[in-house]
Amino acid sequence: MHQTERVIKHFNMFKKNDNILLAVSGGKDSLGLWLILKELGFSVKALHIIMPFKEYSEKSLEKVKSCALKLNDEPIIIEANKYLEIDFFKALKIYKKPICSFCGKVKRYILSTYANKNSYNIISTGHNLDDETAFLLGNILHWHTEYLEKQNPVLESNKFMPKKVKPLIRITDEEMKLFAEISKIDYIEESCPYSKHAKSIFYKKILSEIEAYMPGTKAFFYLQYIENIKGMLFSKSSEELKECRICHYQTYNDDLCFLCRIKSKY
Amino acid sequence: MHQTERVIKHFNMFKKNDNILLAVSGGKDSLGLWLILKELGFSVKALHIIMPFKEYSEKSLEKVKSCALKLNDEPIIIEANKYLEIDFFKALKIYKKPICSFCGKVKRYILSTYANKNSYNIISTGHNLDDETAFLLGNILHWHTEYLEKQNPVLESNKFMPKKVKPLIRITDEEMKLFAEISKIDYIEESCPYSKHAKSIFYKKILSEIEAYMPGTKAFFYLQYIENIKGMLFSKSSEELKECRICHYQTYNDDLCFLCRIKSKY
Repeated sequence: MHQTERVIKHFNMFKKNDNILLAVSGGKDSLGLWLILKELGFSVKALHIIMPFKEYSEKSLEKVKSCALKLNDEPIIIEANKYLEIDFFKALKIYKKPICSFCGKVKRYILSTYANKNSYNIISTGHNLDDETAFLLGNILHWHTEYLEKQNPVLESNKFMPKKVKPLIRITDEEMKLFAEISKIDYIEESCPYSKHAKSIFYKKILSEIEAYMPGTKAFFYLQYIENIKGMLFSKSSEELKECRICHYQTYNDDLCFLCRIKSKY
Repeated sequence: MHQTERVIKHFNMFKKNDNILLAVSGGKDSLGLWLILKELGFSVKALHIIMPFKEYSEKSLEKVKSCALKLNDEPIIIEANKYLEIDFFKALKIYKKPICSFCGKVKRYILSTYANKNSYNIISTGHNLDDETAFLLGNILHWHTEYLEKQNPVLESNKFMPKKVKPLIRITDEEMKLFAEISKIDYIEESCPYSKHAKSIFYKKILSEIEAYMPGTKAFFYLQYIENIKGMLFSKSSEELKECRICHYQTYNDDLCFLCRIKSKY
């Protein structure tokens, strides 16, 4: 809790008068962060997105609801398919990229557009140190510079979306598990059935081997990248954002965003 | 052999009229490279440095001599302690850094000064893809920018040393083992007794897990770093080389090189 408070201050993430929209999945990280932000006295609203993953999605929703009861709070609940007016799996076939990448894109779209429409000036997610480090290692091994450039605990707002923050970047998986247990938060323990072969799980395994051999490496690797190396690699953001001519969401190379492009091929 | 020939050409390492001094340790890589460079018709002389590591050093020397017999060639043999007029272990205590780092520094000193005095314009070593990738991973996990900046298959000559090249950077440990077997080169299989806990061995293990999970990653990770990322990280070499006022070898922060500094405290 204090660690997270320090991170929020250090990276100038948000203040007491900000309106925070927190994405909650039903996992230990986002539910734990929900509790932390409320206890620290921030003005936070939780948003849960129902994905069409049957049993897994039902169970996730249950955990969010039981945490809401415990916190005496009301989360916003949005069904992805209804909100976007698509069928997720049909759209995925048109999108032709891995399911995890599409699912992330869809959730970011919903979060950003919902926050904008409803005057939230901060979007927070529960990504922790292990998530971020795994992502960093994968992007470095394959030198995905476009992702390396965007990896940050804070993304400043632009005309398409509010500021995005990750207050848990100093906390590990193990620490969040412990915190959820102590705080008696009931969370979904299984990972998503579609992510079983996700590379992120492999990178986490590799990184815990490295951490066991040289304790402290994981945090140093990530924080040093964020605070120093990234600035050496990328002098200034090179990609210019354009606006989708239909829904006005951001797009990189096109006059249609990924979603309206899919819909145009529906 | 053809792979290595392509690397020599691609990185413009050396030509038929260059005088190459090849560092041979007694291991599969350097002995294999000795054979390759001779068969490709380059003008190459092998140099073996005897380190004071008792049995291990004796065995290494034996392997070098037996390979020399096979190649019908005469290597240069230099005893480190005699050449430098020091006692390695006494000097190590004064140097106060890990033995592997000191041993490397000593060997580079001998190679560079010997090459300069004897008109070799190229120094070659047998570092292979696994060596270089392990080094890169370690330097990235700890963001050792000073080493990241110097890592290269080719280091151009400066006033202190001739051009340095690593023709085996596309070849793996496994491939060199196979090549040594096919070519009936007898080499020392054990790693140095002082390097048993060397981190490089740990990084090689981690990298082979990554390679098994995602074949091709190792070579991509290294070559992409060398050819593109490094230039993004470091625009121009920032450190200026100075000259040691006693032996005229290079030094970074001082008017004495590491060796003359040690001797001044002897």
